[in-house]
Amino acid sequence: MENLANRAAENLAKVRQQKPLIHNITNYVVMNFTANALLAMGASPVMAHAHNEVEEMASIAAALVLNIGTLTDDWTASMIKAGKKASELGTPIILDPVGSGATSLRTRAAKEIIRETKLSVIRGNASEILSLRDSESKTKGVDSVHSVEEAAETAKMLAGELKTTLAITGPTDVVTDGENIIQIRNGHPLMACITGTGCAATVTIAAFSAVDKHPLYAAATALAFFGLAGQVAGAKAAAPGSFMIEILNALYTITPEDLKAGARIIR
Amino acid sequence: MENLANRAAENLAKVRQQKPLIHNITNYVVMNFTANALLAMGASPVMAHAHNEVEEMASIAAALVLNIGTLTDDWTASMIKAGKKASELGTPIILDPVGSGATSLRTRAAKEIIRETKLSVIRGNASEILSLRDSESKTKGVDSVHSVEEAAETAKMLAGELKTTLAITGPTDVVTDGENIIQIRNGHPLMACITGTGCAATVTIAAFSAVDKHPLYAAATALAFFGLAGQVAGAKAAAPGSFMIEILNALYTITPEDLKAGARIIR
Amino acid sequence: MENLANRAAENLAKVRQQKPLIHNITNYVVMNFTANALLAMGASPVMAHAHNEVEEMASIAAALVLNIGTLTDDWTASMIKAGKKASELGTPIILDPVGSGATSLRTRAAKEIIRETKLSVIRGNASEILSLRDSESKTKGVDSVHSVEEAAETAKMLAGELKTTLAITGPTDVVTDGENIIQIRNGHPLMACITGTGCAATVTIAAFSAVDKHPLYAAATALAFFGLAGQVAGAKAAAPGSFMIEILNALYTITPEDLKAGARIIR
Repeated sequence: MENLANRAAENLAKVRQQKPLIHNITNYVVMNFTANALLAMGASPVMAHAHNEVEEMASIAAALVLNIGTLTDDWTASMIKAGKKASELGTPIILDPVGSGATSLRTRAAKEIIRETKLSVIRGNASEILSLRDSESKTKGVDSVHSVEEAAETAKMLAGELKTTLAITGPTDVVTDGENIIQIRNGHPLMACITGTGCAATVTIAAFSAVDKHPLYAAATALAFFGLAGQVAGAKAAAPGSFMIEILNALYTITPEDLKAGARIIR
Repeated sequence: MENLANRAAENLAKVRQQKPLIHNITNYVVMNFTANALLAMGASPVMAHAHNEVEEMASIAAALVLNIGTLTDDWTASMIKAGKKASELGTPIILDPVGSGATSLRTRAAKEIIRETKLSVIRGNASEILSLRDSESKTKGVDSVHSVEEAAETAKMLAGELKTTLAITGPTDVVTDGENIIQIRNGHPLMACITGTGCAATVTIAAFSAVDKHPLYAAATALAFFGLAGQVAGAKAAAPGSFMIEILNALYTITPEDLKAGARIIR
Repeated sequence: MENLANRAAENLAKVRQQKPLIHNITNYVVMNFTANALLAMGASPVMAHAHNEVEEMASIAAALVLNIGTLTDDWTASMIKAGKKASELGTPIILDPVGSGATSLRTRAAKEIIRETKLSVIRGNASEILSLRDSESKTKGVDSVHSVEEAAETAKMLAGELKTTLAITGPTDVVTDGENIIQIRNGHPLMACITGTGCAATVTIAAFSAVDKHPLYAAATALAFFGLAGQVAGAKAAAPGSFMIEILNALYTITPEDLKAGARIIR
């Protein structure tokens, strides 16, 4: 069995060396934070959502992030256009179904994106991921979650049905491609007290997917890195304002060796 | 006469216990900061503005924030749609008329929202609030204010005419429902040196309105809490970057007991 | 030869005294950061992009910023409308051609804005500025640059052709009006590790242009101030999260005397 802590360290080193361009079509709330997260870890972010620009931008990107927070139908159309181009080119696409299950607009959009594009990874909390089933569960906004366990029992089956890799984040993260299940036990409770940690985890998966073509391992190693950044930040900051800043610092200062030592990836 | 410092402490405790979902239709500049402010104090923010989503989101929210910074007619239409649904359900609605008086678009939109929805509280600076009259006064952008005194003399009358509670923030905050006037003397001068403090005060009123159905008291206690956060931040930070972070920290660390001791609510 | 360090100090003092209103039509990613940068240095930011508002807002502003990150055709139309009004009134307009050269939408929009409005200064990295020629060069997103030298040799000629002042930022900044060339050697490597430093440099030029009607000197002195803020921040912070906060602090705490002593403006 491959040592995924080693692979995490290698992926981080590759991100810093290759500086992959990550094309984001994402929500207004987190654009600044996720752009800064990508820059801090060594990647190159670009945000672009115009109908008549997204195919061109997706064509030069190493990975594409589709995030449905603050969604409108207009943005969904851009996401699908960019996603089709990326699918055609074999560029990894990571979907963050923010708030899916909370409103029918978001659930419908998430399902449409799943249907129309070839996704590498879907990253969400348990409630969002569960909403991608024909479930009737309603999430309470974007910050509430059901238990990871509730999700884990159906996640593997769901990943198989959706023919993609699912990354369910929470106190313990679960990543599954329908055949294998990996748990990641990095992270810190303050991650739930600032906006955009989930979205930043998603862009980290995108950056790692740009350098690691195996979606299951890209997602698992990315979540270990992002979770370790949370731990490092949590050791320095006791409240959410400072924690948000220390996460950005940690994404910059954590070395591949730190990650090799600190990754808690269980399979 | 009820002790409003006690009520402030109780309201803060209720926000942390109930974690009310606050639906925001707000401006691009402050979305991240106000989402983080709500999370830090213990509430659950969601941002959603699509025409075909806002009624559903407003229906599951405990309070609705309408903020007209970076406005377009398209967003005004969404605000009114969400506001009508919230009015129908009796959900508290807080209006932040950012820049009203500076341009006719914003003044017109603020007045339309007032006419079409049942607002609990309108929170603005003196110039913005005065523009809601048939006044000719022009504000100089969103960060300039006339004196609070200039506003206070007409605020009570205006609140009566508009049949709502007005919260006018400045060095001294004034809250009035047309019958009573309450002054809040918390706060710090650096609050004027970062963007979004007014908008964050507004979302704090929304969170407190979700747990206190008396708009006058919800607004007054919320402003005492937010102003105290400014004071705590100002004791730790001497410049606006650090101050912005320390405000988020303070919204998280201030206890109900701290608030009971530190609230400066005069009536 | 005039001492531009003195002029930089005078311009900073004027910004703090006059608090010029800066109208921004800018990208979603940096709205919060550039608003905070303007507030920290003493100016008054306003963000407004609605077709039926931009002329009114531009009419009361002391300078106008047009920034094409996260662009759509709809926003380009607003930029040109605002820009025409500002041109008519003689209000300084600063263009930030974010990502020009990376996609045809952005290159086309930048060129259209140049054609339709009377720009005071265009601020970009070397690759963006070079894309404004009839060049075939492609930029790799918004964070990659060619060498400043590559740009400098054509910048003076290009400034003459475009009849404007060009400010090319990088390890060494170059400002030219087609006749004169000024180099600014302030700044810090961490400025490349957070999003929005280029955009914040642009709004600093706008604030200085509001108080100094000579575009070449306004741009050069603004870049010295912003670069010095980077140096002050870099002396306090070793990672990008903290650096972002310390830049805002430095824009607030640097005095005109500090700037006079620290400006590295060479001509």
